[in-house]
Amino acid sequence: MPLVRISVDSSVSSETRETIASEVYESMRETIGIPDGDRFILVSSHNADEWFIDPTFPGLQRSAKFVLIHITLSRGRTVEQKQALYARIAERLHESAMIPPDDVMIVLSENNFEDWSFGKGQAQYVLNPPAWARNATQ
Amino acid sequence: MPLVRISVDSSVSSETRETIASEVYESMRETIGIPDGDRFILVSSHNADEWFIDPTFPGLQRSAKFVLIHITLSRGRTVEQKQALYARIAERLHESAMIPPDDVMIVLSENNFEDWSFGKGQAQYVLNPPAWARNATQ
Amino acid sequence: MPLVRISVDSSVSSETRETIASEVYESMRETIGIPDGDRFILVSSHNADEWFIDPTFPGLQRSAKFVLIHITLSRGRTVEQKQALYARIAERLHESAMIPPDDVMIVLSENNFEDWSFGKGQAQYVLNPPAWARNATQ
Repeated sequence: MPLVRISVDSSVSSETRETIASEVYESMRETIGIPDGDRFILVSSHNADEWFIDPTFPGLQRSAKFVLIHITLSRGRTVEQKQALYARIAERLHESAMIPPDDVMIVLSENNFEDWSFGKGQAQYVLNPPAWARNATQ
Repeated sequence: MPLVRISVDSSVSSETRETIASEVYESMRETIGIPDGDRFILVSSHNADEWFIDPTFPGLQRSAKFVLIHITLSRGRTVEQKQALYARIAERLHESAMIPPDDVMIVLSENNFEDWSFGKGQAQYVLNPPAWARNATQ
Repeated sequence: MPLVRISVDSSVSSETRETIASEVYESMRETIGIPDGDRFILVSSHNADEWFIDPTFPGLQRSAKFVLIHITLSRGRTVEQKQALYARIAERLHESAMIPPDDVMIVLSENNFEDWSFGKGQAQYVLNPPAWARNATQ
């Protein structure tokens, strides 16, 4: 149910975009309990004059490999789960796409179960909340 | 006051994009009480290597006609209103643009009345909340 | 920590895009207490058939200079701070880019401190909340 919007530099290859998307998905699988197949990821690319990213705030060293990952997801993950998610994404992108951890920025925006319709005009999670939520610490 | 971001495949014609935008607007008019003229809709298109949408999760059959509709709107709609919105969008897109209901995904993100400035540097809904909210079930 | 998504018409020059981004950043500096360097701004452009913006709702006169500014930021700013932000952005865009105040639409989406990772796979604001929040009126 996360909706992931990834922004990269226009120079990033199609192959690398797919790698980034896959690694973000696998990281969510490992740390915040999303089910198999719950993959909804959009990748946008930006020329240098289409985004303005501070190169160092707060105390980092960003390069042309910078990736911005904005995830919309249902409320209910703990701070610890979110921290694990950030760490795992940075780790996987470093290993698989040689992106320095300083170049991985992640932003979360939360909504509610009733705010998702996957298709058929239905609100699937109203009748049938996802498995992770049934044991979640709010 | 909803801000609507629609994502479609690059192959979708300009005419169909306009139809989708209009039908989403009419569906919001019918189900969540937005006023006449409250239409702020952005459409982005994606090549196959720019988005990664699971073809079946959770138990659906998606095609190249897949449409993702992300709506930012003020808090206060009931679960029933949201369900009516999803059903109406799917129905209208099927009728007017021949998009199968399985291909219509909708995500809502809520904010507050003070989070909107329509122009003039003012927060219009702080002084003057919209009509639907004055009788809303919170 | 705000993440700013700006949408403009495709005809807007690269120079004007940069001006708009800078003025939004300076306005946030002046009104909502963001620290020096906290600049994360994406600009997207749209052809006429890629966005559908009502020309008058609610009682305004929009032109081809219309700019949509969608800001994701941490919860905690007062209504008064938000009003000051809207006024300042409209004023600055008028002065620096000759954009009429009726053409400046701003939408805010709030999240939490733990929803930000600026890099290194860490949630920087969990351990170290920003200065403005330590004295904020909730």
